[in-house]
Amino acid sequence: MGLKLAGLDWEARFVDFFNGATRTPEFRALNAMGEVPVLETPTGVLSQSGAILAHLAQTTGKFGSVSDPEVLPWLLWDNHKGSTAQGMLRFIRNCLPEDKRNSDVITFQQGRATAALTVLGAHLAGREWLAGDALSIADISACSYLYYPGRFGYDPDAYPAIAAWIAHIADQPGWMHPYDLMPRA
Amino acid sequence: MGLKLAGLDWEARFVDFFNGATRTPEFRALNAMGEVPVLETPTGVLSQSGAILAHLAQTTGKFGSVSDPEVLPWLLWDNHKGSTAQGMLRFIRNCLPEDKRNSDVITFQQGRATAALTVLGAHLAGREWLAGDALSIADISACSYLYYPGRFGYDPDAYPAIAAWIAHIADQPGWMHPYDLMPRA
Repeated sequence: MGLKLAGLDWEARFVDFFNGATRTPEFRALNAMGEVPVLETPTGVLSQSGAILAHLAQTTGKFGSVSDPEVLPWLLWDNHKGSTAQGMLRFIRNCLPEDKRNSDVITFQQGRATAALTVLGAHLAGREWLAGDALSIADISACSYLYYPGRFGYDPDAYPAIAAWIAHIADQPGWMHPYDLMPRA
Repeated sequence: MGLKLAGLDWEARFVDFFNGATRTPEFRALNAMGEVPVLETPTGVLSQSGAILAHLAQTTGKFGSVSDPEVLPWLLWDNHKGSTAQGMLRFIRNCLPEDKRNSDVITFQQGRATAALTVLGAHLAGREWLAGDALSIADISACSYLYYPGRFGYDPDAYPAIAAWIAHIADQPGWMHPYDLMPRA
């Protein structure tokens, strides 16, 4: 999303995550963490979406900076508590085979995701953006899973400040829904 | 630990986390995220341990930089996959009341923690430090839970590269065991 909002030229490359592509030696040579996304640039390969966003911010001068003491805590919070909990819940509910969807684990992850949404909503009440007074990489990181439909804990009516914030991000020039941005995802 | 390794003057202030101190309005005014640690400095209050480490690195010139494209991905990985999984597993196993320790949730978190240790161990094999060729804030972040004894998934014999790395960090001037550093923790 950062690439699109920054107006850069880029091309998606499909990684067959659900069939183990990130576990191959070839992929681990590209990214020791065995995760997507990875950004290949003319000067090197970057892993971790937050590090990719930091690189985009640094090279384009847009969306704040990872060195900004307002931006960094929310970028880290999102990696620690926000998108991580949303993403895991979505993975368990939507991507695991039915017989692996353990209801106690779902309840646990739901609790973590809800706690994070509560913190996010309280912080956004009366604010336009997560950090400072402009859209930053913290916003781009933390909004990511909230555009996906489905039963993973985000009810816009329960979190009006979050709903206003994700609508505001979606109004930015160049924004596209993640499903349109990555059609095979 | 970063404060101690950097040789700075600091003082611990006890936060009664297990009795809800981080959920009070007073604490939320200090840190909207409702988490410990928080660093109060003469110029402001910082939350998120990774942001505190980044501030220490910036102000002391030690332990790399959050803007370093080798350091940042591992700092984010640790927030996303490493210490987060270890810490949650430790919390469930050691801190929750017995009747709240759900075995399916423990198994799930154990799987996440083990996957993270596998990635960490593979990356450290043949390397001295996580990023570049010096101790950095990525190392200080990622080692934190691995000094705690107890049954939360880290068997030094199974991860010799991790065991060598945490021993190496413990050899640094100023290092103290977390229990000695924060006696009431």
